[in-house]
Amino acid sequence: MMVSVDFAKGHGTANDFVIIPDPDGRFDLSPAEVAALCDRRRGVGGDGLLRVVRTRALGLDADAEWFMDYRNADGSIAEMCGNGVRVYARYLIESGLAAGPTLPILTRAGAVVAEVGDETIAVELAAPRILGRSTVRVAGLELTGTVVDCGNPHLVCTVADPSTLDLSAPPTLDPSDFPDGGNVELIATEPGPAVRMRVVERGVGETQSCGSGAVAAGAVALADAGLTEGTATVDVPGGRLTVTLRAGKAYLDGPAVIVATGTIGPARVSVPAM
Amino acid sequence: MMVSVDFAKGHGTANDFVIIPDPDGRFDLSPAEVAALCDRRRGVGGDGLLRVVRTRALGLDADAEWFMDYRNADGSIAEMCGNGVRVYARYLIESGLAAGPTLPILTRAGAVVAEVGDETIAVELAAPRILGRSTVRVAGLELTGTVVDCGNPHLVCTVADPSTLDLSAPPTLDPSDFPDGGNVELIATEPGPAVRMRVVERGVGETQSCGSGAVAAGAVALADAGLTEGTATVDVPGGRLTVTLRAGKAYLDGPAVIVATGTIGPARVSVPAM
Repeated sequence: MMVSVDFAKGHGTANDFVIIPDPDGRFDLSPAEVAALCDRRRGVGGDGLLRVVRTRALGLDADAEWFMDYRNADGSIAEMCGNGVRVYARYLIESGLAAGPTLPILTRAGAVVAEVGDETIAVELAAPRILGRSTVRVAGLELTGTVVDCGNPHLVCTVADPSTLDLSAPPTLDPSDFPDGGNVELIATEPGPAVRMRVVERGVGETQSCGSGAVAAGAVALADAGLTEGTATVDVPGGRLTVTLRAGKAYLDGPAVIVATGTIGPARVSVPAM
Repeated sequence: MMVSVDFAKGHGTANDFVIIPDPDGRFDLSPAEVAALCDRRRGVGGDGLLRVVRTRALGLDADAEWFMDYRNADGSIAEMCGNGVRVYARYLIESGLAAGPTLPILTRAGAVVAEVGDETIAVELAAPRILGRSTVRVAGLELTGTVVDCGNPHLVCTVADPSTLDLSAPPTLDPSDFPDGGNVELIATEPGPAVRMRVVERGVGETQSCGSGAVAAGAVALADAGLTEGTATVDVPGGRLTVTLRAGKAYLDGPAVIVATGTIGPARVSVPAM
């Protein structure tokens, strides 16, 4: 590119994002450009990228003014990201592009609504479906856990102490239950329910936080307490999330922070001007 | 902090740095604050931090106008970083704080001189001393290599193809030769000399680039060619460096890029205002 591009960087429980404000839809970022921006050493760095664009700039007929164009760090397209939409909402508020506290946002998985608080932002996600039991080999153990569908597949396993596990090797799921793989959550639950969780994400490895994984873990903790509705705290390595199941819906609540704003210099990262 | 802090982010062959301009020496960053800024998910992210401060603001009596206050990502103090000083010099030029092409910079290891080109920046580093032979267990192999002192200790080992090695496990050096550990360079050399190198840094693991490691590798390649002076190219995973030995001095040359500039928002990262 021959012009400078504005950016922000933010995170929700240490799940971090490069944010590219593009209200008028001028930047149709290629996978290579997204990967360059998300490169942690040569670019800005992030688990993914959030392009902030008005729905009408893309010709989308939606009640929501804003579309979350979410990309994985490798440049591939992703439908939805629970922590990403919370950071996206925080950016809209802090930048003055939108006002809260209730903020509809269009994603590739449909419209979601963010509820913006001073410290935390909640978002409604797909209601989790508890499907049964399956097994996994992880951390040198053979574990049985609960299969949960949150739009993406999860296996939630209760262990004595997640903090002591060696999660450096990828888990081996049962391919008959997880033909496309899945995320594995290792949890310990105390009354509340209060869950401590570590998560190994499909194709990534252990991460500091996973929004859908927290919802899956919260749903299992509530179910183990005999509840179909209620609230569970889920402590992930990156911070504390709160999961609420109510009236057939799931809500993910937690901190979302814009760390920095700035400008990517001309000719530094390959991003098209138009 | 309750104010915003300016920053830049830059890299030299994918060795990346948070840059904090502080000409008047107002930010005496604590180790925890440096670690927060270098945190790749909650902060800006970098292998280290470069505070850009005038020598006279610190009461230092020096010919150089600028002092490179270099910190490791964990907040600890480091004396010198070959790629860091090249990125530091690029920042001084691009920000207009100094003019090239010859730029003296004071470091904790003494004054160095950067030579600023359009694409690359060269810096004079400590002349390498070739000390003898030692062994290492690395990548499942028992290798013998050349011990090189570049101010910090290195073992340079020639292998058939560095690209195929599994460097995920830490190397085991001979403690009688490396009582404080050391960096291990795995190299393959072609006429030129042209070196392809991977490097495992002490206490860090494999990195994309290491300036002193490139100097060590270049010195070994020149010595193997029967030369005590000359130039070697050293291709590291992060790009191409050029090492020149001349008149008892060593020069490291290569690209240095400022990727982005911006502002860290108030209360986002714990940095003191004064």
